[in-house]
Amino acid sequence: MIQGIAASNGIAIARAYQLAAPDLTFEKKKTDNPNQEVERLEKALEISKQELQKIKAHTQKELGDEHAEIFSAHLLVLGDPELINPIKDKINSDNVIAETALDEVANMFIDMFKNMDNEYMRERAADIQDVTKRIMAHLLGASFPDPALIDEEVIVIANDLTPSDTAQLNRQFVKGFATDIGGRTSHSAIMARSLEIPAVVGTKEITSIVNKDDMVIVDGIEGKVIINPSDEELSEYKTKQENFAKQKEEWAKFKDEPTRTSDGEQVELAANIGTPDDVTGVLENGGEGIGLYRTEFLYMGKNELPTEEEQFDAYKSVLEQMGDKPVVVRTLDIGGDKELNYLDLPKELNPFLGFRAIRFCLENEQVFRPQLRALLRASAYGNLKIMFPMIATLEEFRQAKAILTDEKEDLKREGYKVSDKIEVGIMVEIPSTAVIAKAFAKEVDFFSIGTNDLIQYTMAADRMNEQVSYLYQPYNPAILNLINTVIEAAHSEGKWVGMCGEMAGDSIAIPILLGLGLDEFSMSATSILPARTQLSGLSKEKMTSYKEKLLSMGTAEEVVEFVKEKTDQ
Amino acid sequence: MIQGIAASNGIAIARAYQLAAPDLTFEKKKTDNPNQEVERLEKALEISKQELQKIKAHTQKELGDEHAEIFSAHLLVLGDPELINPIKDKINSDNVIAETALDEVANMFIDMFKNMDNEYMRERAADIQDVTKRIMAHLLGASFPDPALIDEEVIVIANDLTPSDTAQLNRQFVKGFATDIGGRTSHSAIMARSLEIPAVVGTKEITSIVNKDDMVIVDGIEGKVIINPSDEELSEYKTKQENFAKQKEEWAKFKDEPTRTSDGEQVELAANIGTPDDVTGVLENGGEGIGLYRTEFLYMGKNELPTEEEQFDAYKSVLEQMGDKPVVVRTLDIGGDKELNYLDLPKELNPFLGFRAIRFCLENEQVFRPQLRALLRASAYGNLKIMFPMIATLEEFRQAKAILTDEKEDLKREGYKVSDKIEVGIMVEIPSTAVIAKAFAKEVDFFSIGTNDLIQYTMAADRMNEQVSYLYQPYNPAILNLINTVIEAAHSEGKWVGMCGEMAGDSIAIPILLGLGLDEFSMSATSILPARTQLSGLSKEKMTSYKEKLLSMGTAEEVVEFVKEKTDQ
Repeated sequence: MIQGIAASNGIAIARAYQLAAPDLTFEKKKTDNPNQEVERLEKALEISKQELQKIKAHTQKELGDEHAEIFSAHLLVLGDPELINPIKDKINSDNVIAETALDEVANMFIDMFKNMDNEYMRERAADIQDVTKRIMAHLLGASFPDPALIDEEVIVIANDLTPSDTAQLNRQFVKGFATDIGGRTSHSAIMARSLEIPAVVGTKEITSIVNKDDMVIVDGIEGKVIINPSDEELSEYKTKQENFAKQKEEWAKFKDEPTRTSDGEQVELAANIGTPDDVTGVLENGGEGIGLYRTEFLYMGKNELPTEEEQFDAYKSVLEQMGDKPVVVRTLDIGGDKELNYLDLPKELNPFLGFRAIRFCLENEQVFRPQLRALLRASAYGNLKIMFPMIATLEEFRQAKAILTDEKEDLKREGYKVSDKIEVGIMVEIPSTAVIAKAFAKEVDFFSIGTNDLIQYTMAADRMNEQVSYLYQPYNPAILNLINTVIEAAHSEGKWVGMCGEMAGDSIAIPILLGLGLDEFSMSATSILPARTQLSGLSKEKMTSYKEKLLSMGTAEEVVEFVKEKTDQ
Repeated sequence: MIQGIAASNGIAIARAYQLAAPDLTFEKKKTDNPNQEVERLEKALEISKQELQKIKAHTQKELGDEHAEIFSAHLLVLGDPELINPIKDKINSDNVIAETALDEVANMFIDMFKNMDNEYMRERAADIQDVTKRIMAHLLGASFPDPALIDEEVIVIANDLTPSDTAQLNRQFVKGFATDIGGRTSHSAIMARSLEIPAVVGTKEITSIVNKDDMVIVDGIEGKVIINPSDEELSEYKTKQENFAKQKEEWAKFKDEPTRTSDGEQVELAANIGTPDDVTGVLENGGEGIGLYRTEFLYMGKNELPTEEEQFDAYKSVLEQMGDKPVVVRTLDIGGDKELNYLDLPKELNPFLGFRAIRFCLENEQVFRPQLRALLRASAYGNLKIMFPMIATLEEFRQAKAILTDEKEDLKREGYKVSDKIEVGIMVEIPSTAVIAKAFAKEVDFFSIGTNDLIQYTMAADRMNEQVSYLYQPYNPAILNLINTVIEAAHSEGKWVGMCGEMAGDSIAIPILLGLGLDEFSMSATSILPARTQLSGLSKEKMTSYKEKLLSMGTAEEVVEFVKEKTDQ
């Protein structure tokens, strides 16, 4: 049994699937038998080709032609005599093993392409790198994980899951995740909650302990992973699984109810989504709106920027599915831990404190304007609200809003229908903005507090860095004071405040936030019904009466203890 | 003429000295004449040897045996047949040029040593790397800059100056700096002010424009660099140089005066220092205390931790030189951009949000305790105050203070004399601590606001990252509000507040800080007299009357405009 961090509720039982990069190190050696090495190379090429054809067909079927293109490119590389012949030549002329020849020739091409001043050529370097890894894996007798090809129920075991890993996963068969690294706010955790599958992250060592095909139980409620369980354990967890299903039924009763506290106050429970496909889950879970539509997914896993049309289609689809319900769309938040290979963002020493989100967009209007146009055009199809991420100064907000107004006028001139009721707000995730929220409240239509970043900056602790994870303290009184400052500032100007960080769905935070007067709580869709259930038992008046006491506390520990006591948790 | 950022006051005129890493790229080629290549290698080895002997002798004389050790190690590498013979063999067996052979053999050794699980061996990898670069430079006919050997008056032109570069500079001959990158708070800027030499940083392109031995004028007042000035310009700047000297004389009149505003209020002007040698400059510039003694210099440029004795000597020396005047010592602030090669700190994605300063010390008591012991023992020799850096939570402060108390009791038991009046405070440089300063004020003896980091975290912008440098806004109303929160919290508990960031010596910030009630301003020694002169013309009452207005402003621009108008700047 391994203890990790509970990242997504529920119990999953299935065989392990190791999604780990194979070890591709080898010793550079001479050979007496170059012919044999050429044969080994050809065999590795053949297996790689068969695999790639299979993945390509599968991707085409599941995700469409466009997604399968990358594998066509890989197949081209694999069949390119300009790459393959020099490898064979090198084996024969230098009497080296196939691994050495492949490594040296491929690296030469990769370096060459990488340094070209041409985006297309630089992409070729990435293709050669991917293909080389696959061939190398087969030369070394290692298997190369292809998550797209999973065709039986599994629990994915990985060091971490990157956005591109999850994009490739066959969601139908992945029953749960367990990873070495990450916390409740890491990409893999957020993804698991959005897919509604149990997950445990931050186990530190799961990849080195679990073997291929081990039976694994992921307990996403308590953050445990059980490897090769006994019959007793199996039956215990099957019961737990059933109980969890029953609890979900209990929660489901609140699905079509408004969110009301025990003293009759209403708040809004909304969901965070990443793609139009996520909307179904939001509606099934009784979401009253979308509090955060992360638009980055539109930009990821591709080779170029999405067009205005593509974006328009996605935004329109979300708005139409949601009907009258509010949809808050966040403009592009790229940079930091989210990179786009085709944008050539600078390498930074401290990417979390760097050139990202609105900072990038204001400098790259050719990226920003098409997104704004797509949003404005989509506004005719529902209840759209737009918010800008990583706003640190009033000037940034004014500049972004001016560009939006500019595009709005252009679109109207061009004859497009654009809603006149679009609210324009900002993410409050940088301390400066929280501190002088009063100045912002006069100019924005709403605030949405992004606690993941706000906590990280306020505590000066990278939320991805395990060594300072003890400083990621949502309940630190400093965080509560900043949230309170934002809410008071907004209400004094008649504006509303949402929260779209992980904190909004947390059972300790919910009573505090209710007391501070938060208007909208936006969370993973699967957290909505538990939150609604919890809120139905809380008195807003009582929670408000604790406000001053909580705000004057000195430590997160005191806060948690107090809330637990007052809410019987 | 190039415009940069004025980093240190004054005018310097001298020849340029390019402190730039030479370009060591070369094309891997075969040769028909391996004997000639071996000869070229031997010649490069010989020049490198002569250089290293000269630097070693010079360093021994100037800085002592310990500092010269590194060069003994380099000479050993240079004479090691186990490294040199394989290079010659490779030239002969592969018919390659000397550069190729050197590169491949050295890299093999470097990789081998680097991956060993032994600190000593890993250091050898660094030695081989340094020596290889020097040999390569001579093979390529490039010169390898050796700042320690500068023996005539020069202006150092560099991309940037690292702490190890400045440690090697011969201070007697360096009359000024000009660098490509950096801002007012970069290491090179701080160093220039501490050495009292004019400097211009952030010129973006100075290294590519200035040639060896060009005559250069550095105007550290207006942030300009003039290359190969005309006779007219030369005489104009000589006049400017004299005027600056006269202004310094004017300032000097305030040297032995207390710091008093026009309405008779007193504040304290203290200095930031890095080594005991800096104390002379503090006293010469009329410093009323030391507001920040950065102890990192004791730990840098060496191969192991400083002993308790070494530290005790340094702290005692500073305290004795300062007599009754207060000396605030900051405990070790390592990590972030400050690395120690012998400590093996983890590589981090966002070092500024990582495992540094007090976070590191609390986890590594074997490093922390000897420093606290040295400080406590030195406390008997002057007016010592201790402060902990990067405190984000009350728990951290309590834990650090408990360790201090523990060591104090131990020392007393051991018979040492320890002062009973040591004040124990914290740096306020993390937003969380500023926000709930009220809770901290009950437990600390004083606060010292570290604006460099506080601004960086509050604005979520890396202060070393040029692309977000527009967000490094000392006058942002959010920063002013946080400073105000800290000062009000401290005063309500009868505690004092200092500031030891760059902002404390800034002529726009000084009137604001006076109005907010700051008690102690700690700055570069050379800023003290200008600040005292400025303060003598400011009315505290008037500045206080602007407080509410300034705190409710929305942008830094408004603040600056207002202050300039009200103080005739």
